[in-house]
Amino acid sequence: MADWLAALDRRAELRAKAGLTRRLRPRGADDAVVDLAGNDYLGLATHPEVVAAASRALTEYGLGATGSRLVRGSTYAHHALEETLAGWLGTDRALVFSSGYLANLAAIRALVRPRTLLVSDAHNHASLIDGCRLAGAETHVTPHADVDAVAAALAGAPGRPAVVVTESIFSVDGDLAPLARLHAVAREHGALLLVDDAHALGVTGPAGAGAVAAAGLAGAPDVVVTATLSKALGGAGGVVAGPAEYVRHLVETARTFIYDTALPPAVAAGVRAAVDLARAGDELRAELVERAHLAARRLRAAGLDVSTPDAAVVSVTAPGPEAATAWAAACLDRAVAVGCFRPPSTPDSRSRLRLTIGAGVARADFADALEVIVECAP
Amino acid sequence: MADWLAALDRRAELRAKAGLTRRLRPRGADDAVVDLAGNDYLGLATHPEVVAAASRALTEYGLGATGSRLVRGSTYAHHALEETLAGWLGTDRALVFSSGYLANLAAIRALVRPRTLLVSDAHNHASLIDGCRLAGAETHVTPHADVDAVAAALAGAPGRPAVVVTESIFSVDGDLAPLARLHAVAREHGALLLVDDAHALGVTGPAGAGAVAAAGLAGAPDVVVTATLSKALGGAGGVVAGPAEYVRHLVETARTFIYDTALPPAVAAGVRAAVDLARAGDELRAELVERAHLAARRLRAAGLDVSTPDAAVVSVTAPGPEAATAWAAACLDRAVAVGCFRPPSTPDSRSRLRLTIGAGVARADFADALEVIVECAP
Repeated sequence: MADWLAALDRRAELRAKAGLTRRLRPRGADDAVVDLAGNDYLGLATHPEVVAAASRALTEYGLGATGSRLVRGSTYAHHALEETLAGWLGTDRALVFSSGYLANLAAIRALVRPRTLLVSDAHNHASLIDGCRLAGAETHVTPHADVDAVAAALAGAPGRPAVVVTESIFSVDGDLAPLARLHAVAREHGALLLVDDAHALGVTGPAGAGAVAAAGLAGAPDVVVTATLSKALGGAGGVVAGPAEYVRHLVETARTFIYDTALPPAVAAGVRAAVDLARAGDELRAELVERAHLAARRLRAAGLDVSTPDAAVVSVTAPGPEAATAWAAACLDRAVAVGCFRPPSTPDSRSRLRLTIGAGVARADFADALEVIVECAP
Repeated sequence: MADWLAALDRRAELRAKAGLTRRLRPRGADDAVVDLAGNDYLGLATHPEVVAAASRALTEYGLGATGSRLVRGSTYAHHALEETLAGWLGTDRALVFSSGYLANLAAIRALVRPRTLLVSDAHNHASLIDGCRLAGAETHVTPHADVDAVAAALAGAPGRPAVVVTESIFSVDGDLAPLARLHAVAREHGALLLVDDAHALGVTGPAGAGAVAAAGLAGAPDVVVTATLSKALGGAGGVVAGPAEYVRHLVETARTFIYDTALPPAVAAGVRAAVDLARAGDELRAELVERAHLAARRLRAAGLDVSTPDAAVVSVTAPGPEAATAWAAACLDRAVAVGCFRPPSTPDSRSRLRLTIGAGVARADFADALEVIVECAP
């Protein structure tokens, strides 16, 4: 019995030796750093209208939803948010979950029938990977963004139900999946397409409706969209959007919906206000794209290996995990917060800095932050 | 492709024929019903001090945490809540998740080593079942609350790491697991004990510290506690509490912690205020127990089959799923909200009404609600 804690200690020592220790760093509300680490792409988490809407609902409803939506918690705030999201995304219906992780677990499982094949991109987020695991279906992992490999996997399972599972903007490298081609291949084989649009919603697409909408796939009867409400929308929770029959199926069968306390009504109300602001945010979006490319150009000019951003995520290769940690720490010492991604959080063996571009950062601060990153580079 | 929606429709029709349709019923903030359905046991969701604490943090931090705790979101509000929870629960450390479901997924997986056997109670919550599935370890399901069966399962796996997984107060029937005996058996076999204390935290135990504390197991080195922050604490999110080495392991490896946006700081702050109120809530707890037994006596006197409540959950057998739905609907027509549990949400074949006793309900309303339930009985 006592040996289990010693065993955990040994594993911690191994991680420490490999430079893979993770530590929580407390921060205050008025932390005076330039934030290139968070996902508040449009600066909506602190927008007065978002805070005011959440505050009103907090006073009206109290803090928690006090139960599962089906038993107790299905407030008007949830329904209003779902109508707003479905309208924005161009789908029949949308269903809100208490986190994006739980939304993905539910979305995949609800698509699985007997003999279903799941075809999952190698760079997919942990929640999609766990979703495939929990769905209990055979899962074929294809090389990243490899449409031919997806087509071959589908061709290898003739007559079987199949679902192609992908992110749109990938969370680590910020590149965009070839959604239109994936959809064409899926449709050719009678397969469905599930897209996690978490890092695209609010950032790309018509009125910010995301990469699925940008690819002309909004409302397609063989496409399901998932997203978080915690990135560009500045709140918390997740959403699954798609055909009405499918969303009804989720309401009636999804374990992570039925057996989970609903998202707090105040969060639902705040996110609803954020959607209105995000829809009207074309100028902010243009600014984000411009800054992402500016960052890539500046860092490349300094000799760094930088991804080509398709939205607001920029990835910069580090020589190794210790170097990545030291680099991020040096930036933070100079009041620039950047993401530090090391194995197993990276889909390949490379450690990276991940820069997320937020519209809430002042232009001059952003330019200065890029110089700090260059000066601190190993 | 098009047939998938038709297939979902057929499954919905089968559920409808079996009386198992689930529908969302929107509710407003000032819904004038007597709530015997939600889990706000101490009435803290709407407590002015909870709302005020959440409101202050909302203004300070904004709505969302804007990222994973490790990347961006580890605010002082989270750390303060975790210190408070660990102190209350009597454990080394506590780690907050964005939902109780995600906390359970993480807690179980982090206990699994090669060759681990999970021994799981047949009445366990969906999140514990999914946690066992995702952990990828052999799982032995034992009959409900059967200590001998647990002992036999452990004896059948000599020399293997093992974890006994149970709820304390079971969510459907409201009965208490034999925690002290389970712990003795686990310890005898060198196994660990994981207890989901969701329906006991705030409701039972010294200063409301839950059923694990009540059983004298707080801080035991071979016990891990999980709970939601969304029931008696009136908020949202979940917590895993245990030895420091184990919680550090969660921070460094738990996928549903690392790859998930943190709980909103305002929720963390509100829940922290709720803990202070819950600790001081001995009078409320005495009232809850008294009401639960009053409910059981009154409903039994009317000839109904009623569970013996060990906390604030009372289960009443219904003749079948349609009858349960009609019963709950008739109560609601008379402004009494009760939980309606049907397969597959019940661990056996029985449909039930589930009554949850909340201190926020006025005494006279509570007594009247019991009469409504009796009068509406099939």
